[in-house]
Amino acid sequence: MNGADSLCDTLLANDVDVCFANPGTSEMHFVAALDRKPQMRCVLGLFEGVVTGAADGYGRMADKPAATLLHLGPGLANGLANLHNARRAQTPVVNIVGEHASYHIQYDAPLTTDIESLARPMSNWVRRIKSSDDVSEAAAAAVAAARTEPGRIATLILPADAAWGQASAPVSRAQPPAPGSVDEATLQQAREALLNGRRTIILLSGKALRAGPLETAARIAARSGARLMAQQANGRMERGAGRVPIERVPYPVDAAVKALEGTEQLILIGARTPVAFFAYPGKPSVLIPEACEVITLASPADDLPQTLERLADAVGANGATPIQVAEGGRLELPTGPLTASSVIQAIGALSPENAIICDESVSSGRDSFKWTWNAAPHDFLQITGGAIGIGIPLATGAAVACPDRKVILMQADGSGMYTVQGLWTQAREQLDVVTVVFANRRYAILHNELKMVGAGEPGRNARRMLNLDEPSIDWVHMAQAAGVEAARASDSAAFIDLLRAALARKGPFLIEAVI
Amino acid sequence: MNGADSLCDTLLANDVDVCFANPGTSEMHFVAALDRKPQMRCVLGLFEGVVTGAADGYGRMADKPAATLLHLGPGLANGLANLHNARRAQTPVVNIVGEHASYHIQYDAPLTTDIESLARPMSNWVRRIKSSDDVSEAAAAAVAAARTEPGRIATLILPADAAWGQASAPVSRAQPPAPGSVDEATLQQAREALLNGRRTIILLSGKALRAGPLETAARIAARSGARLMAQQANGRMERGAGRVPIERVPYPVDAAVKALEGTEQLILIGARTPVAFFAYPGKPSVLIPEACEVITLASPADDLPQTLERLADAVGANGATPIQVAEGGRLELPTGPLTASSVIQAIGALSPENAIICDESVSSGRDSFKWTWNAAPHDFLQITGGAIGIGIPLATGAAVACPDRKVILMQADGSGMYTVQGLWTQAREQLDVVTVVFANRRYAILHNELKMVGAGEPGRNARRMLNLDEPSIDWVHMAQAAGVEAARASDSAAFIDLLRAALARKGPFLIEAVI
Repeated sequence: MNGADSLCDTLLANDVDVCFANPGTSEMHFVAALDRKPQMRCVLGLFEGVVTGAADGYGRMADKPAATLLHLGPGLANGLANLHNARRAQTPVVNIVGEHASYHIQYDAPLTTDIESLARPMSNWVRRIKSSDDVSEAAAAAVAAARTEPGRIATLILPADAAWGQASAPVSRAQPPAPGSVDEATLQQAREALLNGRRTIILLSGKALRAGPLETAARIAARSGARLMAQQANGRMERGAGRVPIERVPYPVDAAVKALEGTEQLILIGARTPVAFFAYPGKPSVLIPEACEVITLASPADDLPQTLERLADAVGANGATPIQVAEGGRLELPTGPLTASSVIQAIGALSPENAIICDESVSSGRDSFKWTWNAAPHDFLQITGGAIGIGIPLATGAAVACPDRKVILMQADGSGMYTVQGLWTQAREQLDVVTVVFANRRYAILHNELKMVGAGEPGRNARRMLNLDEPSIDWVHMAQAAGVEAARASDSAAFIDLLRAALARKGPFLIEAVI
Repeated sequence: MNGADSLCDTLLANDVDVCFANPGTSEMHFVAALDRKPQMRCVLGLFEGVVTGAADGYGRMADKPAATLLHLGPGLANGLANLHNARRAQTPVVNIVGEHASYHIQYDAPLTTDIESLARPMSNWVRRIKSSDDVSEAAAAAVAAARTEPGRIATLILPADAAWGQASAPVSRAQPPAPGSVDEATLQQAREALLNGRRTIILLSGKALRAGPLETAARIAARSGARLMAQQANGRMERGAGRVPIERVPYPVDAAVKALEGTEQLILIGARTPVAFFAYPGKPSVLIPEACEVITLASPADDLPQTLERLADAVGANGATPIQVAEGGRLELPTGPLTASSVIQAIGALSPENAIICDESVSSGRDSFKWTWNAAPHDFLQITGGAIGIGIPLATGAAVACPDRKVILMQADGSGMYTVQGLWTQAREQLDVVTVVFANRRYAILHNELKMVGAGEPGRNARRMLNLDEPSIDWVHMAQAAGVEAARASDSAAFIDLLRAALARKGPFLIEAVI
């Protein structure tokens, strides 16, 4: 057995059985090892941003890591933007980055780069394998790091000679640490804050946004009069009919300041104090009132569901009735011209039970919650790190993790172009993903931002940097080129027809919604 | 005037007047400043790999840097693979990387990353702007760094508050250092080596591969009996009829070792001692014979044309007759089924005078020189750093730099998918690029490499990671989706017809060559 086999065995022994990959020459021994293990599902991405973004989608839904296989520094570099999103989503991911044979690095062959320097900003954990016999222990440590609560990016660098050399070490088992437990004093502090009558927001993120913990949180809110909110961006939320409705902190600074206005106490449960996505002249970076007291009850590394249970006990909330969305409410379908809102309204009305709704609609979907409160119960996955190009890969990975669930992707056109190669993976794997492209043919968010700069009407240079016209992208051809069936809709009725048809069948489909 | 205006003015004052861009919110003040300067040509890429790869192609042909505009760490990360290629090509590039306002970084907003850590592996020079008044000096220093011989990657980090704050500093001028000059002792050493009768290779790269210096080198070779070779990968070579034919060190290890066999002396002029692209068990990393003496006559930072002139003087080569390709030779067109070779043969026969031939055909084009020795004189730009995804952007940038020349891109299908978004930029800018996709529907290079691993016939997992079939990519639809006219050819006659037609018109065209 060589090091590559040892790596493959260790991943499988530790329940990592999906590998999103784009290999190169230096990874050929690992490819050969994967080829000897049919129980490992290998999914090719035609660009590494697809590979890492799919691993993010998979990890968010599977609650366990997939492996990625990346080709040296440049392959890793191509995947970094979506690893950035995955890190912000707190998704478990194990990256295997191929590297030159250790003795070859000194010659600075063309693909040689400083992989650690590239990996660290987007990884919580980085390790270079020392030898074939180090492979199994290192791989198990990587899985343990990835599985450390709430989920982390572990990057393992695999020199080619460690892959091809003989390995005799036994298969190591990952031993991730248990999630943290909140100390009693902090719990009491939160309890007192909740019962002191001051205006309080409980800000949630991470696993606190799954249906069960959220219901517990809603009982606490009902008992204490505190308001529940979710962080602006979260890896996964369980939403829809029969579940607790929860607003996110708005994205625009002014709206966020307004939403948080008057808050006297902020209790963080897996969330962070809201800050502006970007700084603007004369606007605050921190979005809560200056006088607001912040209580960090639980960090993301803590056991959030358990923390909520304990807090519910502490405030005597177990008998309280949480606010929930009524089940079975009738949702209206939109009519008339197609707009971002009518597209989302149709998705909210038609999405089936247990769908996974992925959102990289950027400015088009800023009000999406408004139309989806009482959609059938669904998981909601969004862009978390602001690095555009997550949508198509995210949906791809979620569909690999949950083959029995329908995935619906709300995709802005500008960001969709970033990792458009992911459509091919959906076709190759026949994944059950309906992609809806919001084709406004511009970076609409930047038009707004340019206005805020006070630059007046954009001239030629600005228009040419912010518009996606001249020519417009033909998303139907684009999808077909990748083997995904597709069609275009320009009014609500046509869109509804297409969406119904796409949802009624299995396999990937793309709708270009011209808005 | 704000810092963004100061940056724009400084770039223009230092002859940087093309900006390949994909901006985001934090760069909006710079976008507004660019909008006030119509003399700056802003070219949008729909993904940052297009932006940086285009800057590489531009810099190789313009012999001066373009600016890139990238959105924080993730935007830079998306552009790193092609910056890696540009660094290996020794191309001058000035990256402007937007960053949060300096006071905002402490809050770790979602897009915050360690930009320096990401930038350093692919940059020769990195600087963070300190204030609005630091902008001009920093930008001039960036241009100077980029223009330092032979051409470097300079990365300038622009905090948003430095862009929007008032700037009163005068516009700075870049003062790149003069190229290095080889000392007399080393020149004499090279002279003696050339005249001592031992088997000698003069290995060239960089500007030594332009037509003039190459002719000088060929005189030296004719006088001394030394053999000329080019490095395996070079940023730019001037080739074709009437010029000096020069072989590159072969890519495969065995072929390279054979080509260099028996060499007793190696004289490096802007080149490096040949090393294997990848290490293989039991094969050497260094490709020259162990006993071969290496004389580094000129480093890439030296004035290579001047060094060759001096060396020619020293060895008395000025009267020597260099070997050159005869002009006006008739090139035969291929017939029969379409193969990689027949595609290249047709390109060699039909490419017009002064074309720019870009090559990311990977394994399909390994023997391309065989068919293009006596093609009409042309520039040859190739992938230099092994980070696939350079082809389409490289051709795009070269076409921006040289609007009056025909650009022909030989593009492998696997690597073409990496930065396929670049086709849209060609359509937007109506660039005169003919892209020929070698559609073998596989990572053919990896099939060979897998064989070398001794893994036998690939099984399901290997096939699924190395093949681009199920489904095949439809390159005609892909191009049309991006607004580029396209057609498919499956035999030589059809390919020749399409190529003739594409070369006879202006503007982008893509031919899917099914091989």
